[in-house]
Amino acid sequence: MAKVRAVIVGGGFGGLRAAEELARHGCSVTLIDRNAYSTFQPLLYQVATGGLNPGDITYSLRSFTGRFRRTMRFRRATVTGIDTGQRRVITDVGDPIPYDYLVLAAGVGANYFGIPGAAEHARAIYTRAEALEVRDLVFGRIEALTVADPGSSVSMVVVGGGATGVEMAGALAEMKQQGLPIAYPEIAPDRVRIILVEMGPQLLAPFRRRLRNYTLKQVQKRGVDVRLNTGIEAVHADSVTLSDGTTEQADVVIWGAGIGGHSEVADWGLVQGAGGRLVVDDDLRASGQDRIFAVGDCAITPENPLPQVAQPAIQMGLHAARMILALEAGETTRPFAYADRGSMATIGRSAAVVELPVGPNLTGFPAWLAWVVLHLAYLLGGRNRIAAMVNLGFRYLMYPRSANAIIGDLDRDLPQLER
Amino acid sequence: MAKVRAVIVGGGFGGLRAAEELARHGCSVTLIDRNAYSTFQPLLYQVATGGLNPGDITYSLRSFTGRFRRTMRFRRATVTGIDTGQRRVITDVGDPIPYDYLVLAAGVGANYFGIPGAAEHARAIYTRAEALEVRDLVFGRIEALTVADPGSSVSMVVVGGGATGVEMAGALAEMKQQGLPIAYPEIAPDRVRIILVEMGPQLLAPFRRRLRNYTLKQVQKRGVDVRLNTGIEAVHADSVTLSDGTTEQADVVIWGAGIGGHSEVADWGLVQGAGGRLVVDDDLRASGQDRIFAVGDCAITPENPLPQVAQPAIQMGLHAARMILALEAGETTRPFAYADRGSMATIGRSAAVVELPVGPNLTGFPAWLAWVVLHLAYLLGGRNRIAAMVNLGFRYLMYPRSANAIIGDLDRDLPQLER
Repeated sequence: MAKVRAVIVGGGFGGLRAAEELARHGCSVTLIDRNAYSTFQPLLYQVATGGLNPGDITYSLRSFTGRFRRTMRFRRATVTGIDTGQRRVITDVGDPIPYDYLVLAAGVGANYFGIPGAAEHARAIYTRAEALEVRDLVFGRIEALTVADPGSSVSMVVVGGGATGVEMAGALAEMKQQGLPIAYPEIAPDRVRIILVEMGPQLLAPFRRRLRNYTLKQVQKRGVDVRLNTGIEAVHADSVTLSDGTTEQADVVIWGAGIGGHSEVADWGLVQGAGGRLVVDDDLRASGQDRIFAVGDCAITPENPLPQVAQPAIQMGLHAARMILALEAGETTRPFAYADRGSMATIGRSAAVVELPVGPNLTGFPAWLAWVVLHLAYLLGGRNRIAAMVNLGFRYLMYPRSANAIIGDLDRDLPQLER
Repeated sequence: MAKVRAVIVGGGFGGLRAAEELARHGCSVTLIDRNAYSTFQPLLYQVATGGLNPGDITYSLRSFTGRFRRTMRFRRATVTGIDTGQRRVITDVGDPIPYDYLVLAAGVGANYFGIPGAAEHARAIYTRAEALEVRDLVFGRIEALTVADPGSSVSMVVVGGGATGVEMAGALAEMKQQGLPIAYPEIAPDRVRIILVEMGPQLLAPFRRRLRNYTLKQVQKRGVDVRLNTGIEAVHADSVTLSDGTTEQADVVIWGAGIGGHSEVADWGLVQGAGGRLVVDDDLRASGQDRIFAVGDCAITPENPLPQVAQPAIQMGLHAARMILALEAGETTRPFAYADRGSMATIGRSAAVVELPVGPNLTGFPAWLAWVVLHLAYLLGGRNRIAAMVNLGFRYLMYPRSANAIIGDLDRDLPQLER
């Protein structure tokens, strides 16, 4: 019997789990990604705030496929179409790639919901490039304060009170409270403002009430101006209009408010649902397809929408791989069932929340420690794990004294702030 | 007595040493740099070959000035002029900065000696941005081979057989020999060529004969095509013309052949010598100036030109600071005398050369170990030291198995190689 040819689109949590499982069971796997690296998205906010290097949270996909040399190949490419008739994936480089089964794990980007100016002026942190842009913009704006009028200020608006928004606002607040007085003694701390805007009545809505309350208190204690029950009407070059009619200065707008499928997905000829994501049946096959699966953030499951974090993607990737092996063995597919292993979010140094399906909630230092262990020891591997530990360890232990933030070539054309 | 106001231009080895010495002796110091970070230039070639993160070898200048909070300030700016009459430094942002003494430690960039096409097509690795560009170009070209005709190849030409060229060619050769077969099993290793071009008859010309011979043998053993007694006539988009009349394919040209002062220096109204560098008297004062010193690579001393490495810059920075303190104490200046502490260059894993003023030469593993200890333990500090050790340690121990090179967003518009 000829080897089963599986093609995986996207080298994130879901794609890599599917690729590994299929390669281990003798399939011939081609992994496609637009980048030559996998990004550890849960720590991108650390890159965006200068705590980690981009290389600390990216992992060479060729190093991954090199572990399965006899069965796996990598192609760096963007998928431009799917020829379901001839079962071929068409990419922007090289010949079309034939498949017996296809696993789409393409991830998502920001969804601006058509809010005026948002796509133009707000910045997401779903990719390495976006995180670096936010980082150098944030530090560039603060840097510009040093030669601006002493009455001027910088305002950073984080949109969305989910994990992304809370972690980003928390990290910015820590920088303001601890790093700023050392690195920028000439800037009065109240010249840097951090606003967290959330449309609903609470932060981290999916968490239990005690954890939500703890989070709100911790974020506020760190100096973040939290605006609940507040939407964004419009984003302008240097301000935002809020749903209560007020306008706030906004030199950097970080968007953690919604996700949507990548625009290329529209060219793949599959059924798309809300936000352009791919509609899947309960066995994770793309609607109406018998050999195409979609997993992770790019898929919308028929039941309750799953959280857009690592665990569901990993479990979905594994399920898709197993269903492919089942189909090849002449069996039928089974529905996917998400096993909730709990959720966590970090607010800052020694402050985090952990919610487990059974057992007690965790907050504060124990939660923070659990977050560190899970992210650094379990999820990251090899060089990345140790390098990230070193950098975060220094940030934790030395921040007030060293403030040696990782920064890039700050935009030299930033306007001098005159407000 | 009012505090002496010293302004330091450039946060490299020389500038930081001068700034520290002056701050320690009670001067009020303003440090100016176009970037918000100091770059550890001796390891830039590691960034250019994916072994280190940019943040591993850059250090926040605000973290540095934060250590001298009462006496030192930082301004991120480019110096656009010097008003020697009113003793003010004019920058592209903010008000002019008054000085009693000025230390210019602005460093240098590449000098292409007017060779046709060199400025346009060759790339230097003197800055973080340049190193990142070379890195992503090198990996992008190799990546493109995977979807190109199997008869096609990639050729990287390193120009200059000094330490920069030898270290870069050695690191590229190591990647080709060890990383390539794992990460790119579909690419036959002989499709990647590395050529090192040197105008003179030997590599590492300033070193002793035994070390030069060792270096040549090691570099060749690693598969580098070394062309001695060969100059560059012209650089084209995908080839170089050599002085022997031949043309070689050259998809990436890395320039380590010469340095020159930054173009802005011409606007400073000071006496410039060869390559636009600043001519200094034997006490390191800029020619004809009584309150302006120039140190490090940007200065040309009247005696033998000094090597463009860390030690001379550090010693010159310290000397300039001491002369400023002497002048303020009513004393006269003394001539600068360089104390040679030896030279070193690394060729690759376990291969390096060390030449000491007295005592034996070192080669091989002992020399490599000395290089590691000096660079990582002595020269780099804090977070950078440990993070760099982790990344280089993994590269050393794990390269063949993991090949997890640090790469960025490879140029998506690279032409498919059809040669």
